[in-house]
Amino acid sequence: MVAGLFASVSVAQANEQLEKASEDSNQWVLPGGNYSVTRFSKLDQIKPQNAKDLHVAWTMSTGALRGHEGQPLVIGKMMYFESAYPNYIYAIDLDNIGHIAWKFAPPKNPNAPPVACCDVVNRGVSYADGKILASILDGHIYALDARTGRVLWTANNADPLKGQTVTTAPLVVKNKVIIGVSGGEFGVLGYLSAFDLDTGKLVWRAYSAGSDESMLFNPEKTINGNLQKPVGKNSSVRTWHGDEWKLGGGTTWGWYSYDPKLDLVYYGTGNPGSWNPTQRPGDNLWSMSIIARNPDTGAAAWAFQLTPHDGWDYDGVNENVLFDATVNGTAYPALAHFDRNGYSYVLDRSNGKLLAAHKYDPTVNWAKSIDPATGRPEVDPAKMTKAGVNVKHICPAAEGDKDEQPSSYDPMTHLFYIPTNHICMDYQAFDVKYKAGFPFVGAILNMYAASPNVRGRFIAFDAVTGETKWAINDMFQDWSGALTTASGVAFYGTLDGWFRAVDLSNGKILYQFHCPSGIIGNPMTFMHDGKQYVAVLTGVGGWAAIGLAAGLTKPSEGLGAVGLTATLGEYTSLGGTLMVFGL
Amino acid sequence: MVAGLFASVSVAQANEQLEKASEDSNQWVLPGGNYSVTRFSKLDQIKPQNAKDLHVAWTMSTGALRGHEGQPLVIGKMMYFESAYPNYIYAIDLDNIGHIAWKFAPPKNPNAPPVACCDVVNRGVSYADGKILASILDGHIYALDARTGRVLWTANNADPLKGQTVTTAPLVVKNKVIIGVSGGEFGVLGYLSAFDLDTGKLVWRAYSAGSDESMLFNPEKTINGNLQKPVGKNSSVRTWHGDEWKLGGGTTWGWYSYDPKLDLVYYGTGNPGSWNPTQRPGDNLWSMSIIARNPDTGAAAWAFQLTPHDGWDYDGVNENVLFDATVNGTAYPALAHFDRNGYSYVLDRSNGKLLAAHKYDPTVNWAKSIDPATGRPEVDPAKMTKAGVNVKHICPAAEGDKDEQPSSYDPMTHLFYIPTNHICMDYQAFDVKYKAGFPFVGAILNMYAASPNVRGRFIAFDAVTGETKWAINDMFQDWSGALTTASGVAFYGTLDGWFRAVDLSNGKILYQFHCPSGIIGNPMTFMHDGKQYVAVLTGVGGWAAIGLAAGLTKPSEGLGAVGLTATLGEYTSLGGTLMVFGL
Repeated sequence: MVAGLFASVSVAQANEQLEKASEDSNQWVLPGGNYSVTRFSKLDQIKPQNAKDLHVAWTMSTGALRGHEGQPLVIGKMMYFESAYPNYIYAIDLDNIGHIAWKFAPPKNPNAPPVACCDVVNRGVSYADGKILASILDGHIYALDARTGRVLWTANNADPLKGQTVTTAPLVVKNKVIIGVSGGEFGVLGYLSAFDLDTGKLVWRAYSAGSDESMLFNPEKTINGNLQKPVGKNSSVRTWHGDEWKLGGGTTWGWYSYDPKLDLVYYGTGNPGSWNPTQRPGDNLWSMSIIARNPDTGAAAWAFQLTPHDGWDYDGVNENVLFDATVNGTAYPALAHFDRNGYSYVLDRSNGKLLAAHKYDPTVNWAKSIDPATGRPEVDPAKMTKAGVNVKHICPAAEGDKDEQPSSYDPMTHLFYIPTNHICMDYQAFDVKYKAGFPFVGAILNMYAASPNVRGRFIAFDAVTGETKWAINDMFQDWSGALTTASGVAFYGTLDGWFRAVDLSNGKILYQFHCPSGIIGNPMTFMHDGKQYVAVLTGVGGWAAIGLAAGLTKPSEGLGAVGLTATLGEYTSLGGTLMVFGL
Repeated sequence: MVAGLFASVSVAQANEQLEKASEDSNQWVLPGGNYSVTRFSKLDQIKPQNAKDLHVAWTMSTGALRGHEGQPLVIGKMMYFESAYPNYIYAIDLDNIGHIAWKFAPPKNPNAPPVACCDVVNRGVSYADGKILASILDGHIYALDARTGRVLWTANNADPLKGQTVTTAPLVVKNKVIIGVSGGEFGVLGYLSAFDLDTGKLVWRAYSAGSDESMLFNPEKTINGNLQKPVGKNSSVRTWHGDEWKLGGGTTWGWYSYDPKLDLVYYGTGNPGSWNPTQRPGDNLWSMSIIARNPDTGAAAWAFQLTPHDGWDYDGVNENVLFDATVNGTAYPALAHFDRNGYSYVLDRSNGKLLAAHKYDPTVNWAKSIDPATGRPEVDPAKMTKAGVNVKHICPAAEGDKDEQPSSYDPMTHLFYIPTNHICMDYQAFDVKYKAGFPFVGAILNMYAASPNVRGRFIAFDAVTGETKWAINDMFQDWSGALTTASGVAFYGTLDGWFRAVDLSNGKILYQFHCPSGIIGNPMTFMHDGKQYVAVLTGVGGWAAIGLAAGLTKPSEGLGAVGLTATLGEYTSLGGTLMVFGL
């Protein structure tokens, strides 16, 4: 099968191959491990009993210093990964780790300043049909020959002069390379694009706000997940004042999942326009939403808004983990979503109907509850932000109780293992004017720990019941991804650089290692020559560590993040290193 | 004693303390391990029998990507190290490795472009009397409080606008901070400076060429080591044409050693002015020499020239290892020096008299022999370079059979363990005009492997007899330092990133680990909580890897080094990581 992956196949088969390959836990063929993005592996060589014997098997510098939010792939005996900007892409033959099989350094784009709101991060490559698909900060998408690194095609998915960038991992579904756009703090109107896997030609593009046509919404067929009825005509523009939807309806920079049976791709949209809600009355649809689309056409099946009329920057882009949920005795094809807004959502993934919503951090206070019928939050009026008012002690802070750091679902315990933030903020909105390519924020934030010296918690959480089984308190936001394995071991890393193996049953730390740099990458696991390995990219940065990454020092900088992790530099330094652990 | 090191003491005692502390192998208190720069440790927990069980104990990114040619110090429970440019300096409490005790980031110097001939490397800090002494690329020397990192004083030892930089580790002797200058490829006239340990005031400065006064040479007392008689008047200027000595007589960027009994500091000087010998007739004294000076006054006791009228860039800056030699039945206080020119020299360190000279790489061909009476090489006329002629197949190449990468002397086997280069070159000199701050090279080089795919050899070598006991052949230049330990294990790293433990008795590789980046740093060892650790800075760069480090691609770039390691990027990437190994 491994050899088969490299053989050229009918593109329509690509996702069947990927789906099948993702069941082979010896490999890690998709960014999230599988189309359901569970980041769960059936491998069980590393167990609670022996995890203490883990050690570093080998290492490799990426040659880049900024935030590494991705994860390696392993396809057969080949490993692939991408660095933070300047987005180096590496291929390593696991039989010969001392040699770089190939390296791709994208050409520097003189018209694209390496600027992004929250560090020049990257979230990894994808693989399909003998190709490595990679997004580059400047908006280019590359298809590289997985054997040689040769450029097969390149496409452009963003205009950096408008503040558009691409930081996230593409998802290949059938013969489409699906990829979104970043730039929510630059007034970018978000979209999801699908490029032809063979040619790089744009097949469809679906905007997050605007006309029904531009959003690929069918007023009669696309379901409003909140209301469980068709969205109707102009479902987006009627929730905005005038043309304001043009300046940022929900960028699309999170993780993408796919259900082959329902043939739907799931993703989230980010904040609406500026961070000043006074400037943009209305629910601002379809920002802050989960959207399900047909991968062939982009047609939206349903959309569910999480945070109407956002006043906190609670982007809805976090991963949607597909799992089988039993709610009140009924089984559903479900998805779980741990939103920036501090609520976990379980939706019926066939129609976007809300099945359960719970706070996954006890400090959430901006909304008292989520209406079980509509999913609409009951906002605490005291925590609603508005221009000119410094609203104090809102929990969670803008970085959310979780940001892009992906959770893992263990189908054996039916629990989600979630790296979370544990932070609150003061938020003062103000009017702001749009200028293409310049920040369009309109709020000054002060973020801080929700509990003394605790800014992150790694939790075992039941998304159906809302029960937190255990939590590990950490000094900084837990901004790495999580990995679970069939032997009952979870893995994650801390912002100050500790890589950990944790006993799933009780949250006990079985092993930890001090990595070169803080960890915002996502652990994955694979087998090679009969041995299980766990790999993670270290390299601190991202929004969580923007002060350290970009050398910012004023608390008000970094969209309010600098003060939150002002002491991080006392614990870790910039770096970019692949760490591979084994017994 | 550990606590005592931090107590403020009479500065005159600083080197007595260091000398005593350097005998305590639990620590590593001097860049070369001790004043003799043997880089030998009495520690013996890691043995040939158990070295296979080594693993990475912890790691730390330095936050810098360029060449790391230094080594950590361990003073008591504190570890100190410096990164490549931008020259970050770190203090780590070994009891709390997850926390940075302090970090010092020198202010960016807007007048000092970070340019050096051979990468913006650094070779480490020194310690004395509660202070960390550090040199910064832009020429500043800092004394930092070892407890807090607070700046106690700063001095300026170079003018970057003249091409002067400082890359090497200072040596503290008594109350003097001794430090040289880099910039031999920018027409810099070399000097050695001594700053007051308490105040940073310049106490003396001794130039490598010019008037007797400026060199601190006493015509009657300073001994010409080659001729074993006083140097006489104007020993330097009479060996130059006109004022040419002003443009580069031997920079002083290597390692410094000290004999407390003889009270002499030893160091080497680099190439004379441009690389075009036709442009500067004469022996060009005292470039390419070993010089012994009194640390209090700078007065030169003796000087020995290795390569008169250099036509190959065979800088004489390599370390001078102090050891007790028995030559023809007589015991000498000796020093061994493995010169860039491919010859090993054993000198009587009391007077600079040559005791033995041998080729330490079999391919040396520029000189047929070294005159045992005078130390003068018998140059092969066919290998003498001259303006306008492309002289082919000169061995060694300009990088030498060894460059700054320091060897280790094991007093038990009486052998030197030397990381060497194994390279040859074609060399075409041409006339060049001097312009302050611009390269002043005057030669185009093409360097290449001396044997197919072998560019480095790690050798066990008897400097008295010239016998090579064993050699490990490596694909690239062995540009890391060496460490030997009393248990019979040597350590070194390869340019493509393998860190190795080697059986001293036979050269068998006992253990190797693939580090994040290539290794041009120098392993050291220490004890903590009863366990022996070996630490090394990884971070490829330096002249050996200037192509990779500076993104150069044309073979003629990097002073001819780019072609030599053109494939290095297929094996390793830029990085900067401290690696600590233990059992």
